[in-house]
Amino acid sequence: MPGPFIASAACTAFGKRSETLVELLAECSRKALDGREADALFVGAQNPEELAGTGNLSTALSDALAMAPRPAVRVECASASGAAVLEQAARCVASGRYRTVLVAAGERMTHLPTGRVSAILAEVLSPLERALGLTMASLAALSTRAYMHRHGLTREELALVPVKSHGNALLNPIAHFRKAITVQDVLESRPVSDPLRVYDCSAVSDGAAAVVLSSERGEVRVAGIGHGTDALAVQHREDLCSLRATREAARQAFAEASCGPGEVDVVEAHDAFSILELIDLEDLGFFPAGGARRALVKGETQLGGALPVNVSGGLKARGHPVGASGLAQVVELFDQLTGNAGRRQVDGAAVGLAQSIGGFGSNNLVTVLRRVGA
Amino acid sequence: MPGPFIASAACTAFGKRSETLVELLAECSRKALDGREADALFVGAQNPEELAGTGNLSTALSDALAMAPRPAVRVECASASGAAVLEQAARCVASGRYRTVLVAAGERMTHLPTGRVSAILAEVLSPLERALGLTMASLAALSTRAYMHRHGLTREELALVPVKSHGNALLNPIAHFRKAITVQDVLESRPVSDPLRVYDCSAVSDGAAAVVLSSERGEVRVAGIGHGTDALAVQHREDLCSLRATREAARQAFAEASCGPGEVDVVEAHDAFSILELIDLEDLGFFPAGGARRALVKGETQLGGALPVNVSGGLKARGHPVGASGLAQVVELFDQLTGNAGRRQVDGAAVGLAQSIGGFGSNNLVTVLRRVGA
Repeated sequence: MPGPFIASAACTAFGKRSETLVELLAECSRKALDGREADALFVGAQNPEELAGTGNLSTALSDALAMAPRPAVRVECASASGAAVLEQAARCVASGRYRTVLVAAGERMTHLPTGRVSAILAEVLSPLERALGLTMASLAALSTRAYMHRHGLTREELALVPVKSHGNALLNPIAHFRKAITVQDVLESRPVSDPLRVYDCSAVSDGAAAVVLSSERGEVRVAGIGHGTDALAVQHREDLCSLRATREAARQAFAEASCGPGEVDVVEAHDAFSILELIDLEDLGFFPAGGARRALVKGETQLGGALPVNVSGGLKARGHPVGASGLAQVVELFDQLTGNAGRRQVDGAAVGLAQSIGGFGSNNLVTVLRRVGA
Repeated sequence: MPGPFIASAACTAFGKRSETLVELLAECSRKALDGREADALFVGAQNPEELAGTGNLSTALSDALAMAPRPAVRVECASASGAAVLEQAARCVASGRYRTVLVAAGERMTHLPTGRVSAILAEVLSPLERALGLTMASLAALSTRAYMHRHGLTREELALVPVKSHGNALLNPIAHFRKAITVQDVLESRPVSDPLRVYDCSAVSDGAAAVVLSSERGEVRVAGIGHGTDALAVQHREDLCSLRATREAARQAFAEASCGPGEVDVVEAHDAFSILELIDLEDLGFFPAGGARRALVKGETQLGGALPVNVSGGLKARGHPVGASGLAQVVELFDQLTGNAGRRQVDGAAVGLAQSIGGFGSNNLVTVLRRVGA
């Protein structure tokens, strides 16, 4: 893929917001555009109709930004919508159709009762498993038990994932939860689906992210994007401790970027549940099976470690407005690769990788960014 | 855009169907694939979550077709989703990323009470106008009155649009309504929003369409695609009798296809309401303002006329499962350009144009197909 480059990137503050979904998307879009003109608008959101009562979202945002008569389109891949919309926009620029495009992704969720949000989010699971009463959290609990059993992961070790994320979020001005927590806090928090506790689960959040892609040379290039799928029902998959969709997406993204895991300096991984961060890192090829546990315990994935993961605070502590997350990861990497990540800057970061999960691991994307000249 | 070509195309029968949305999409996808392998799946639907209770639709269809681990993505532009998904798929093939892709679009609506469907469909309108109680039909009624006033169109003349569509649908085995109607039938049908009657409004329907795009030379080429937007609220637009989004989409599509309206042999236009067919044809440049009325009255847009329009039966009589319609138009044109349209064949058709409307004219696409060698 020849380019495209990321000209600019911005996020709203994540958290409980009073603005509408369109207002949130417009806020970060204006920040990213900063007076630039875009040839087209690409919007990502998981379910703006049910979560925010807004249909025809791409037109609504185009209208708010006074972009008519330029094209506007929405892209959806469940909770990977923010990554999928970047992929579509990047391919359209690569095709030569557009020179500069605005990519925005967001979700508005906190105004709804938690039970209603859970029911809406569960629509992305297999009807087969929904009928059994399985939820996102109970599927994550199954994976957690399997991983603990196979690799000897303890409950205390697993708690290091949210402890790390919350620590990083303290350094991120846009993060939803800017509060340090301890292993003890995690273990004593409310049970959700045994062995998962509240602090193991990303929370409902509002927020949006925006990126301007351009065929004109910039500081950061979208070097490769991969996209994979798997059976909708977890019971039809080969393994509870690995996501085939991530492995396929990583294979494609590294091939397109002509690089491998060894060259990556900073990672944003989809940690909607604590266990996913470990599974993600193994599926991406950074560690062998069980190796992500050892790296976590040794502190290798902390800021300052050999491979900093979710220095933004991740889905857990930056917040997880579902459709926004995949693009917010890219905004974080852009800030890292341009040296604008402030107190959470990874020194000399030149190659960044974002991994986003749609549904419970059924539709995943991997995006590799590279600082130009690196 | 270098290609892509349409390798094959298929529709389910439209109408009241007992299958799920995923089953309908899988049915026409299998027919279109006919044993072919596709590198990726692109799905279009307006609102599968609220209309069909199905989230994560692209993965669900990928699963039904056993396409994992290949990429799958959903594209949405309200009622133009079927056209928008073809656009995204075509750009991805043009970018060189994929050689062969499956494009499918559909909607399942008839199982819901009509009032519920109307409420869901109205979510694509401006909140400003929804708050006033305006609906799709009442906005169409405003446009109808304005056109009648400006161009002297009579109620009887307008009825010729659905009379023509129903006549054409008699020749289309997949059409929802295969029943001839008269001007008198239209005038005596139930009022919906004065002056519109039931026969002026496309009906709720179930159905799906699928197309296989390929970079390998085939009989029919996607010669050009255009995409335009306009203000969401009709009260913010310049004209009740013309859609800026169509004019912009047509300009782009003709430019990309290096042709003009004069070369088009057969047209599928978005006739969700009778008046739209006349407005569409003028916005597409086939007739000057008011000229579509004269062409209609003279029979020029009938099968056998100078410019046959909606020979499939159109949204009115083939049926309008919202997300499916834009792609079903392309399936019809593929059949026409390959000489496989049976009793509704337009003799020697070499260039076809499809026009699809998202929302009430806010997000529109135009697709030009050309028979290779023509």
